[in-house]
Amino acid sequence: MRDHIHGPVDPPGRLRGLGIDEFRLHGGFWGGLQARNSAATLQHCLEWMERLGWIANFDRVAEGATAGPRPGWQFSDSEVYKLMEALAWEHGRTGAAWADETLASLTERVAAAQDDDGYVNTCYGHAGQADRYSDLSAGHELYCTGHLLQAAVARVRTAGEDKLVEVARRAADHVCREFGEDGRDGICGHPEIEVGLAELGRALNEPRYTEQARLFLERRGRGTLKPIALLDASYFQDDMPIREADAWRGHAVRALYLAAGAIDVAVDTDDADLLAAVERQWTRSVERRTYLTGGMGSRHQDEGFGEDWELPPDRAYCETCAGIASVMVSWRLYLATGDVRYADLMERTFYNVIAASPSEDGRAFFYANPLQQRSAAADVRPDEVNPRAEGGVRAPWFDVSCCPTNLARTLASWQAYAAAVDGDAVSLLQYASGDLTVRLDSGDLTLRIDTAYPHEGAVRIEVVAAPEGPAELRLRVPHWAEGAAIADATGRREAAPGWAEARGPLHVGATIELHLPVEPRFTWPDERIDAVRGCVAVERGPLVLCAESIDLPWPLESLRVDATHPPRTEGDGAVLQATAMPPAPEGGPLPYRSTRSVGEPITPAPVRLIPYHRWAQRGSTAMRVFLPTM
Amino acid sequence: MRDHIHGPVDPPGRLRGLGIDEFRLHGGFWGGLQARNSAATLQHCLEWMERLGWIANFDRVAEGATAGPRPGWQFSDSEVYKLMEALAWEHGRTGAAWADETLASLTERVAAAQDDDGYVNTCYGHAGQADRYSDLSAGHELYCTGHLLQAAVARVRTAGEDKLVEVARRAADHVCREFGEDGRDGICGHPEIEVGLAELGRALNEPRYTEQARLFLERRGRGTLKPIALLDASYFQDDMPIREADAWRGHAVRALYLAAGAIDVAVDTDDADLLAAVERQWTRSVERRTYLTGGMGSRHQDEGFGEDWELPPDRAYCETCAGIASVMVSWRLYLATGDVRYADLMERTFYNVIAASPSEDGRAFFYANPLQQRSAAADVRPDEVNPRAEGGVRAPWFDVSCCPTNLARTLASWQAYAAAVDGDAVSLLQYASGDLTVRLDSGDLTLRIDTAYPHEGAVRIEVVAAPEGPAELRLRVPHWAEGAAIADATGRREAAPGWAEARGPLHVGATIELHLPVEPRFTWPDERIDAVRGCVAVERGPLVLCAESIDLPWPLESLRVDATHPPRTEGDGAVLQATAMPPAPEGGPLPYRSTRSVGEPITPAPVRLIPYHRWAQRGSTAMRVFLPTM
Repeated sequence: MRDHIHGPVDPPGRLRGLGIDEFRLHGGFWGGLQARNSAATLQHCLEWMERLGWIANFDRVAEGATAGPRPGWQFSDSEVYKLMEALAWEHGRTGAAWADETLASLTERVAAAQDDDGYVNTCYGHAGQADRYSDLSAGHELYCTGHLLQAAVARVRTAGEDKLVEVARRAADHVCREFGEDGRDGICGHPEIEVGLAELGRALNEPRYTEQARLFLERRGRGTLKPIALLDASYFQDDMPIREADAWRGHAVRALYLAAGAIDVAVDTDDADLLAAVERQWTRSVERRTYLTGGMGSRHQDEGFGEDWELPPDRAYCETCAGIASVMVSWRLYLATGDVRYADLMERTFYNVIAASPSEDGRAFFYANPLQQRSAAADVRPDEVNPRAEGGVRAPWFDVSCCPTNLARTLASWQAYAAAVDGDAVSLLQYASGDLTVRLDSGDLTLRIDTAYPHEGAVRIEVVAAPEGPAELRLRVPHWAEGAAIADATGRREAAPGWAEARGPLHVGATIELHLPVEPRFTWPDERIDAVRGCVAVERGPLVLCAESIDLPWPLESLRVDATHPPRTEGDGAVLQATAMPPAPEGGPLPYRSTRSVGEPITPAPVRLIPYHRWAQRGSTAMRVFLPTM
Repeated sequence: MRDHIHGPVDPPGRLRGLGIDEFRLHGGFWGGLQARNSAATLQHCLEWMERLGWIANFDRVAEGATAGPRPGWQFSDSEVYKLMEALAWEHGRTGAAWADETLASLTERVAAAQDDDGYVNTCYGHAGQADRYSDLSAGHELYCTGHLLQAAVARVRTAGEDKLVEVARRAADHVCREFGEDGRDGICGHPEIEVGLAELGRALNEPRYTEQARLFLERRGRGTLKPIALLDASYFQDDMPIREADAWRGHAVRALYLAAGAIDVAVDTDDADLLAAVERQWTRSVERRTYLTGGMGSRHQDEGFGEDWELPPDRAYCETCAGIASVMVSWRLYLATGDVRYADLMERTFYNVIAASPSEDGRAFFYANPLQQRSAAADVRPDEVNPRAEGGVRAPWFDVSCCPTNLARTLASWQAYAAAVDGDAVSLLQYASGDLTVRLDSGDLTLRIDTAYPHEGAVRIEVVAAPEGPAELRLRVPHWAEGAAIADATGRREAAPGWAEARGPLHVGATIELHLPVEPRFTWPDERIDAVRGCVAVERGPLVLCAESIDLPWPLESLRVDATHPPRTEGDGAVLQATAMPPAPEGGPLPYRSTRSVGEPITPAPVRLIPYHRWAQRGSTAMRVFLPTM
């Protein structure tokens, strides 16, 4: 048994992620987000769910008062569990008594609602409710249970076994009895139980849970789920077995949660074929179905992946939860393979999907993360539950409110994804200021990391404590970082994208400096992405930049970029040389003309771009990431 | 009372459309479609609705056997009514006994299901069913009634009053009692009752019905409809009063049916303000929310209009029914105003939406009409009910099967839209071979029209019978027809887009020839339509052309057009000079690169384009209308 506090994922292989207590952030980009999550978002989620009665649903089950109408969608229990997971990480990270006490109180209420046989759900199976598992397609019962198990995993890894873990264990045992080899031949319309069971199986050393996750995986893809109106079986990945698929399709969060569970099962059961299938799906989907921001999901209709190359910037769904799920998948693939490309995509998604969602006060959130907003969205009221947001405005809470609690659990555990340990070697994957202490096979290594990344490209690492035995340090050089350099005891040298190994002994006082080029740069989309033909984007380090209408002297729709002038740094964004294209003269009632419009461009002017994650923070605006060239 | 058999719309103003018997088509483009509708589609619709039990639903109400499960969606009655309307027009057009007998038989079955107070609906209000009007948002009861009224209008205009008209009259009276000034303050989630009431009011000279239509219009837009999950009030145009809106929004068919009813009410009540509102909405929506094909509806999610300039070719919904509804609106606006632009849009929609839908055998249909299909769609089985089609494949029937019967009624009455009469003047609007006999104020004028339009641009018109008194003839010159010419007794001259008046007396034997330039031409989208930036389309007369993958030596995605070479005519399509752009070299896992891809283009080759309406008739293909330029 390892003696550190484990992180969100802890596979049995050589590579492990950081334990929740191994890296203490000191402010900076992620430290700031984490502090805001701690100070505002956790309480905000708790208040909303109390106000809406989603937590009281558990009390109603405990009291046998389930006959009347029940507030919330059938999956609202999962939001409570995700908040509990967030509280567990938060307590593990900071030791905060408030987090611990709140978690304990929620645990009591959930425990009181658990049936004698371990079943726990506030929407099914009690007086006045539909029968247990009577609607596997849409009922989300196993989905909710999966989130309960993940919350318990966070708890056992940060505080050991307690009542929450006991509740989860009983729930998992119930699922194994009910859906085991000799039980119901069913699966849940929304994957999540797979990853929950696999993680809990790992955390509690219960191979039965992993085996049950494997069973669910193998049953899927055979068209057994009753279709939901107008959606086909690919919506819930029930169209083909996971081993046969080449790309992710259908509902993005479903596809990605399923993939995460599949990786856990593949690793824990040494199933190379299954792991290869998910790697293949990652490769194809990242190549053809992923936005520049790392966002996934091209369609509002089914919150789903589109076809290859179908990546409209305006109707990009890029649900915040899909970004989180993508990180879950890439993290597992990184730990399983050590391939740096997975950490690269995580960085892209962290900065351009996950960091984009919360407002500056941590009390409002983007649900969808489009790459273009043609006109400023209407403001929302801070006290109103919003329908699923169309994009353009951060809202305090949603009718389907999966994103806020998902963000909360992810931000509370962010530092666990920042590095990985392999025997006597530590690999830094994400750069943030803080104190990193990792237990290597040879002893404890403590590094102090100082950086203003991503706004500046220098990362300074000092060895504060070193083990007696051997220790190695390597640094991820992002795929975009052509021209990076590393300086260590042996001098300064170029560092090509991939890995840069620190040379020389890691004795106390040794320093290593990584220099990543974060000057703004043009990025061109593949010609097959029809929706952004003739456009260019600007990136700056890991940040995707965007133009907001409030920064422009002309309407955003008329903006044309002069791509012969490279972008220059300004603040945390960039400045471009641009002009405006006046609308074509009217040629009839339709917007199609017999001649190509050749308006006379306005005198060029410099135009400011800001990091995408900060858009719509100065009020509702029009925005675009991909900018037409002249 | 006019003594011809009236057409689908017959407003009280000076301009009237053709009666169903005034124009007999002789083969050609529309004659062929109409013959196929007659020979195959009507029977096809009847068979499917018998097979699925949608017609038997009426029998079940008549027999009091409504307790068990009911086949079909809550709006399936409307499909039966639309078929009845089609049969009425078909009988009016041809006198076919089969159509008359089938209609009579359906009328008996509907009449038997009508309640004593005039209410008729097979889904609500009977034993085991939800109460009448208990779900105005989604129940579609008034929508269904509206279609019943439209069927009766077709009957009364082609055969006079009969049992169907009596059933409709009782249904309309019921609606007036139930929803009148002193009745329920409600509206239907799906507009249609408005246009049905207004038309029936006109046909039966019952201003009460028009007044009820007006009431429904005025009640709308005040947010009284209970929202449908995740859709806001604009989905059913309940977000703002129709007089205040500047553009169509929400569900396209709903928006357009509502507009059609509003025009009828505006015309019949001399409400210039209301008419101006709809004209304003047409102008803005055609300018910014309409596809090159005339198709409307940019989103699958809500089958709805998008924002201004949101016109993705691949995810274009362009529902066949929205095309039909657009024709209903433009036809009414044309009759109300005489403005040629409305007839122009009708032509575009006829050839590129409505004609595109049916298969060559008239037994399968496009539901959505996208302008780009990236990969060939899977084939459908001829005996299978399809989920709402995603596009790319014509299907025999749909779960929500509004389009086949809507097509049937439109094709059966197509000739009524081909010309309009104003006193002693006739205006030819749509060109097709046939015998046109119109009753002018001065007497009957008979024209024989010969043309291979749209494949050839010559339209030859001979006067076969002429009235004693004055008669005038004018010909629509489509907006795209720069360089058109007219030849008549006074010689040949240029004819600018708009109207060309025939000069000289219209005596028997006089001939007039119109020459429309139908050589293929490039058409450029407005720069604000982001989704087709850098692309060009090719049109040929009123036909939008497209490239199909089966005609290309390269993958469709690599096609690049050399726009310096104008397209040349080939068959009913065109040939372009084009080349292929190989994919950019791989630069990482994501499809975004630090340098603009500059592959070496393949040797140019001619590429064939076909009319869009014929796409996917040679099997499933990839297709695109807007072609990237080099």
